[in-house]
Amino acid sequence: MGKPCIICVAITGSVPTKADNPAVPITVEEQVESTQEAFEAGASIAHCHVRMEDGTPTSDPGRFAQLKEGLEKHCPGMIIQFSTGGRSGAGAERGGMLPLRPDMASLTVGSNNFPTRVYENPPDLVAWLAGEMTKYDITPEIEAFDLSHIHQAVLMKHAGLLPGKLYVQFVMGVKNAMPADKDVFDYYVKTMQRLAPDAEWCAAGIGRNQIEVNEWCIAAGGHTRT
Amino acid sequence: MGKPCIICVAITGSVPTKADNPAVPITVEEQVESTQEAFEAGASIAHCHVRMEDGTPTSDPGRFAQLKEGLEKHCPGMIIQFSTGGRSGAGAERGGMLPLRPDMASLTVGSNNFPTRVYENPPDLVAWLAGEMTKYDITPEIEAFDLSHIHQAVLMKHAGLLPGKLYVQFVMGVKNAMPADKDVFDYYVKTMQRLAPDAEWCAAGIGRNQIEVNEWCIAAGGHTRT
Ligand SMILES: [Zn+2]
Ligand SMILES: [Zn+2]
Ligand SMILES: [Zn+2]
Ligand SMILES: [Zn+2]
Repeated sequence: MGKPCIICVAITGSVPTKADNPAVPITVEEQVESTQEAFEAGASIAHCHVRMEDGTPTSDPGRFAQLKEGLEKHCPGMIIQFSTGGRSGAGAERGGMLPLRPDMASLTVGSNNFPTRVYENPPDLVAWLAGEMTKYDITPEIEAFDLSHIHQAVLMKHAGLLPGKLYVQFVMGVKNAMPADKDVFDYYVKTMQRLAPDAEWCAAGIGRNQIEVNEWCIAAGGHTRT
Repeated sequence: MGKPCIICVAITGSVPTKADNPAVPITVEEQVESTQEAFEAGASIAHCHVRMEDGTPTSDPGRFAQLKEGLEKHCPGMIIQFSTGGRSGAGAERGGMLPLRPDMASLTVGSNNFPTRVYENPPDLVAWLAGEMTKYDITPEIEAFDLSHIHQAVLMKHAGLLPGKLYVQFVMGVKNAMPADKDVFDYYVKTMQRLAPDAEWCAAGIGRNQIEVNEWCIAAGGHTRT
């Protein structure tokens, strides 16, 4: 409300492959090119995943370094956010690219189910990733897959364990986690206003829920992700 | 409101030991004795965990059989609920006692963090446990450690995957999961009324939150757990 609308573009994600959609950018060159289009159209945050040559998700710091260099050159001023999500690696691997000091990095502070497995974010890994982000002065984007993740983020912020401004993204529409439900969305917004009125928040609808969740988000004054 | 107040007594739990509290009932005889006191005082559901001789939690069907026999003899008419929680075993072990056909069994339909680890309830294990409960005609008590677990339970109920009446327990006050927060409690109740108005619900506050959560629960018309 009155705040400038921040548009966050997710580069590639960790799931889709060229077989699903030949337009998915996989190489660093393709990723930089498609991000530049989004940047010129007004996107201000690039949420970055990287892939191996064969398209499998990876946390490889070398890939992230190349992508960061390309984005800094072609999208000057764009906020670069690296994913530390669990689809691209296990345990501390997930934070191996943080010494590259992106502006932001995603951080999930709890665990939940995914369509076919548990998305594991054990407390010691969460603490370690938050510590690395503190060390390298990286603002986390909290990926809230459930309500308790918002509470946990606020607790960690109050305990001085999260650097930068508190920034939460509600993730909705993942099978076996939180569905894209408008009443829950409204309660998430209300919870942010109650527990962390100065924080930023946004919402991402997964798959077929993307457009609907973006609309809720814009109407409620959050920023959006495409 | 207007419904009879159901009181649910948790026998022993899976965490405390004699070293923590010498009054914790560990042997089957001690468990039956302490449950009988609660039953005579008005408790109507016995939520049951069992232990080995040395006090470690177990899912051993033999132990559960002994406990069920003792409860049926000394607490006639009491509803017997077995725990399938993850502190007492891994994977399918957690449901090994279901062929004993207790009246109810606990079922967690999502994953979340516990104080020092991930509480893992992968989708295939959840589906298997729900299938066993269907096969043996056992009513699940859904242990909702987070908001999405309520949504998931309702989805499973609508899909015909949960036998009996829908029965949800909100679990609050576990470190790294959902805190005991009155606003969340109220939203949980509102969510039940919205998505499953005919279901039963109750709430359990863990540790120092127990009495407060019970008070919320009674005031809102749910049943309580001690
Ligand atoms: Zn965002
Ligand atoms: Zn991502
Ligand atoms: Zn209960
Ligand atoms: Zn239990």
